Amino acid sequence: MATATETQKEHLEELCQQIRRWIVRCTSHAGSGHPTSSLSAVELMVDLMFDNRFRFDLDQPDNPANDRLIFSKGHASPLFYSLWAAAGQIQPDDLMSYREFGSKLEGHPTSRFPRTEAATGSLGQGLSIGFGMALSARYLDKSPSRTFVLLGDSEMAEGSQWEAIQLAAYYKLDNLIGILDVNRLGQRGETMYGHDLQAYRDRIEPFGWRCIVIDDGHDHAQVRKAFEALETAGHNDQPTMFIARTIKGKGIPALENEGGHHGKPVDDDALGKILSQLGEPNESIRGQLAEPIVYQPNLPASRGIDAPDYSIGDEVATRDAYGNALVRLASKYPTLIALDGEVCNSTRSKRFRDEFPDRFFEMFIAEQNMVGAATGLALRGKTPFVSTFAAFLTRAFDQIRMTPYSDAHVKFVGSHCGVSIGQDGPSQMGLEDIAMFRTIQDGLVLYPCDAVSTEALVDLMAAHDSVAYLRTTRGKTPVIYDSDEEFVVGGCKVLRQSDDDQVTLIAAGITLHECLSAHQTLKDAGVNSRVIDLYSIKPLDHATIRKAADQTQVVFTVEDHFPEGGIGEAVLTSLSDHPTPVNCLAVRKRPLSGSSEKLLDAEEISAAKIADAVRRWMTR
Amino acid sequence: MATATETQKEHLEELCQQIRRWIVRCTSHAGSGHPTSSLSAVELMVDLMFDNRFRFDLDQPDNPANDRLIFSKGHASPLFYSLWAAAGQIQPDDLMSYREFGSKLEGHPTSRFPRTEAATGSLGQGLSIGFGMALSARYLDKSPSRTFVLLGDSEMAEGSQWEAIQLAAYYKLDNLIGILDVNRLGQRGETMYGHDLQAYRDRIEPFGWRCIVIDDGHDHAQVRKAFEALETAGHNDQPTMFIARTIKGKGIPALENEGGHHGKPVDDDALGKILSQLGEPNESIRGQLAEPIVYQPNLPASRGIDAPDYSIGDEVATRDAYGNALVRLASKYPTLIALDGEVCNSTRSKRFRDEFPDRFFEMFIAEQNMVGAATGLALRGKTPFVSTFAAFLTRAFDQIRMTPYSDAHVKFVGSHCGVSIGQDGPSQMGLEDIAMFRTIQDGLVLYPCDAVSTEALVDLMAAHDSVAYLRTTRGKTPVIYDSDEEFVVGGCKVLRQSDDDQVTLIAAGITLHECLSAHQTLKDAGVNSRVIDLYSIKPLDHATIRKAADQTQVVFTVEDHFPEGGIGEAVLTSLSDHPTPVNCLAVRKRPLSGSSEKLLDAEEISAAKIADAVRRWMTR
Repeated sequence: MATATETQKEHLEELCQQIRRWIVRCTSHAGSGHPTSSLSAVELMVDLMFDNRFRFDLDQPDNPANDRLIFSKGHASPLFYSLWAAAGQIQPDDLMSYREFGSKLEGHPTSRFPRTEAATGSLGQGLSIGFGMALSARYLDKSPSRTFVLLGDSEMAEGSQWEAIQLAAYYKLDNLIGILDVNRLGQRGETMYGHDLQAYRDRIEPFGWRCIVIDDGHDHAQVRKAFEALETAGHNDQPTMFIARTIKGKGIPALENEGGHHGKPVDDDALGKILSQLGEPNESIRGQLAEPIVYQPNLPASRGIDAPDYSIGDEVATRDAYGNALVRLASKYPTLIALDGEVCNSTRSKRFRDEFPDRFFEMFIAEQNMVGAATGLALRGKTPFVSTFAAFLTRAFDQIRMTPYSDAHVKFVGSHCGVSIGQDGPSQMGLEDIAMFRTIQDGLVLYPCDAVSTEALVDLMAAHDSVAYLRTTRGKTPVIYDSDEEFVVGGCKVLRQSDDDQVTLIAAGITLHECLSAHQTLKDAGVNSRVIDLYSIKPLDHATIRKAADQTQVVFTVEDHFPEGGIGEAVLTSLSDHPTPVNCLAVRKRPLSGSSEKLLDAEEISAAKIADAVRRWMTR
Repeated sequence: MATATETQKEHLEELCQQIRRWIVRCTSHAGSGHPTSSLSAVELMVDLMFDNRFRFDLDQPDNPANDRLIFSKGHASPLFYSLWAAAGQIQPDDLMSYREFGSKLEGHPTSRFPRTEAATGSLGQGLSIGFGMALSARYLDKSPSRTFVLLGDSEMAEGSQWEAIQLAAYYKLDNLIGILDVNRLGQRGETMYGHDLQAYRDRIEPFGWRCIVIDDGHDHAQVRKAFEALETAGHNDQPTMFIARTIKGKGIPALENEGGHHGKPVDDDALGKILSQLGEPNESIRGQLAEPIVYQPNLPASRGIDAPDYSIGDEVATRDAYGNALVRLASKYPTLIALDGEVCNSTRSKRFRDEFPDRFFEMFIAEQNMVGAATGLALRGKTPFVSTFAAFLTRAFDQIRMTPYSDAHVKFVGSHCGVSIGQDGPSQMGLEDIAMFRTIQDGLVLYPCDAVSTEALVDLMAAHDSVAYLRTTRGKTPVIYDSDEEFVVGGCKVLRQSDDDQVTLIAAGITLHECLSAHQTLKDAGVNSRVIDLYSIKPLDHATIRKAADQTQVVFTVEDHFPEGGIGEAVLTSLSDHPTPVNCLAVRKRPLSGSSEKLLDAEEISAAKIADAVRRWMTR
């Protein structure tokens, strides 16, 4: 008579066999996909999920006590979906819709399939997202949840992995577990370290991780023994990395451990033979997940903090107003937290850190991991505000562009935008950030010109269910709005107008003040101009811009940003079928070091140069 | 009587003292800058440059045998400029122009100061650039040049550093030397590892680097002894990292090793006292550089390779044409080399790798380091073509945006653009790449629709002195140009026109073919349309677009890219003062997995949907 262990082993083997069949069949049916990359991790994942280890309540997927599983190697999606089919969350027939237009089972996992914890497919992002989830569980939810991340060996070349490795150790995340599927082969050949498991261990362990090597990632006994370390170790404050030797294409003798088969499904001719090699199907076999540990969510109480009120004419940098806004909004949004890339004294998120140290995470100078972490935190129900210099958010563009596919509503704040930062020079100037964030589908791009509007916009972005970007300015600008002024997503403010305006000036942030000054100069010269504060660049107030274009002869946009993809092009898009001409003033010369005033003037976006440009146009 | 060693030590000390004075004075004069971050590395850099070690011919700065020095911690620019003042390359008085508008001595080093090897200031980029230079010296120039990179401890959190560390070991670059200035303090407090030198050693050494710890980076004897290892070790195939304990603010007792002084110059009141603490000036003291090793540049001969010719109607993916173009152009451009991020079989740079393995560098999945490496290679006179999926170039936006400040003319090639890639889904789709590359000042953005134009554009971008981007398509498209058709930077092709065109269709790449098809549908329905192939998106052919807008009632742009910052907005900018309406067809719905045809149709950029949109407009 078989022992319980033997029976369970047989069960797992049958599950693996069935999952292999699903992997091969759904990719062949789709005519594309990555069967060989999926096959290498079958035992690792089946033993993780279905050997009374992975704790997940299928009826309560949002239970903070649930374990989480992220496929950082998102191209192993056939395995990912097959696992959830084995857990009863996908009908086996539906697996055959894999990669079809409209299917929830996309080529790489996205939020369209509800059991996807985070969209992946751009490699080297899953560990950072898992880091964020583990951070959330340990420090915010204080839950017993663990986050597992399946990693490919090729993706270990990505620097973002080493950012996550550093930070996870720093934050003592013993609830973060990486499972490194060392199948030796990347897309076009062998990885840097091939099947040398020790090479990974030697590099990861010194960062403070517990590394456990699995010599044969297809041997249930070895995998189980390794995973048991999770249960016995308890809280040792170390993240864990399982490093497993596996065979790419395992289970299909003709493909095993051979190059040239990456991302290639089995063709129809070979399919029958391969399925028969995989053995008799047991279509009805399913796996059981473990129950989550009973856990009482313990939402921390928040407290109100006074922040300064602003009066018209006060000189306040919008970055300062951002820091104050976070503090003031902390009690309104109990899920609000802040992350910063080692520049909190510059972005002013320091103000929040000092008041709410438990809700602030120092991410050091590692922007990719910071954005990945924020993604993980957002997906676990937090409202993360991520700040660094606007210029350095470009470092994480790949992570940023992936957030919508996870439905992760991260809030980004970029300080030190434009040439107006002055002497530090172009390396520190955010001059591409509006263009970058405008490409994020359904994302907000907000750009306040004073402290009052900053606070209002931070409130709006916290409340809005989407990715959002706020652009703040280094230098002080005068408060121009009453503290009870109302702002809306997609709104703008007409600050100067008359019945006989000849010119419309549209700007946001620092150049709005230049426009207000140019307005006066022009008025003194007999030219009436309308001035619009386009604080919401995306979406923008189409109707008001159109009306201004209807009622004036010409529109000027003015921005401290490169012309491409910025405010000017946003307005041009809004007026694409409108005959009124638009002139876009923007940063067109090579930006240099120098004083803010000299740089605004040199780039022809200062008040004087705006007035000049208008006068030239009027007398053309 | 002093020994030669003692005399030299005294000389170095006097130099250090003078350099400290310059650092303090120029930052105080500027009213900004990073004196404390500069002061920590004075001895390390003076002993490197002026103790008969750093080989550089001031009369021949381009000599491939010269050593190179990159300040990855670019905010230590006061030290950087002071070193070159000590080498006689800057007049001491000119140091006082530091950070002034128009000065070559910008806040962070840029190519405006000729001795800047690479622009820095965005942290974590210098080691990758140095890696590229060392790669160039070892494998291409085969020169004795060594590349030194001064690193800050804070920036070691950046993943890009660990990409460079991995790759430098993989390529056995014993001519790459990092000098890690462990001054313990980042911008807002202590770094992750503080003054724990061993923590850095433990992490870097396992990657295959030789690590040499300097317990006191201000002790000339210790620094010299450490640096002597460079001379005695010979070629051991290992990159070297010096890890030195230093004191932030060293030399100014009130600031030494104290937080809160990052990026803050000494104020005028304290200046006199601090200068007197730094001792009597010796304004005339200067340092000597060593002579470079005599070296005969050995340019490899190239050979001609035949590549396929194309005939009209042939179905060829532009990515295939890219691979063929590299091969064909190899002899025309002896400096042409290629780098790829582990996807050469997809981008088709594999074709070049297979023919010219000595001119191809596998960069693995580490895009940031790849772009940094290409920057270094470009700065050492090579013409690097960098390829990966267009989507994954976003990973390196920060490195890309820095290239113009180095005058590094890197050539980027992004494959797998747009929804037309199909089943792999949104994570793999380049939908922001045109927006990203359009922001690069003076950069080219090229997007061919067929094999013939691809080859011509690769030739143009190789010849052009600027950053350039080429966007290629995964699927096959028919050849539409004769093989002798001529293309120019800033050109376009009017492919269909008549005397009574009502509509202009502007597209590039895959949607150009959709427009050609829509043209026929519309013609059959009695609507004449002009079709323009906008293969050069930046710069674009303003005159031809204007003429089309003059001669037709409406312009439609069609692109497989998000609407923001793409072809549509480029055309809108060109027509910003033109009354003809412009309709921008682009990817507006959430991109999914599916067939190319279904996705183009769903996004309303297929031939049928273009014709529909035109008809709707005509009958509005």
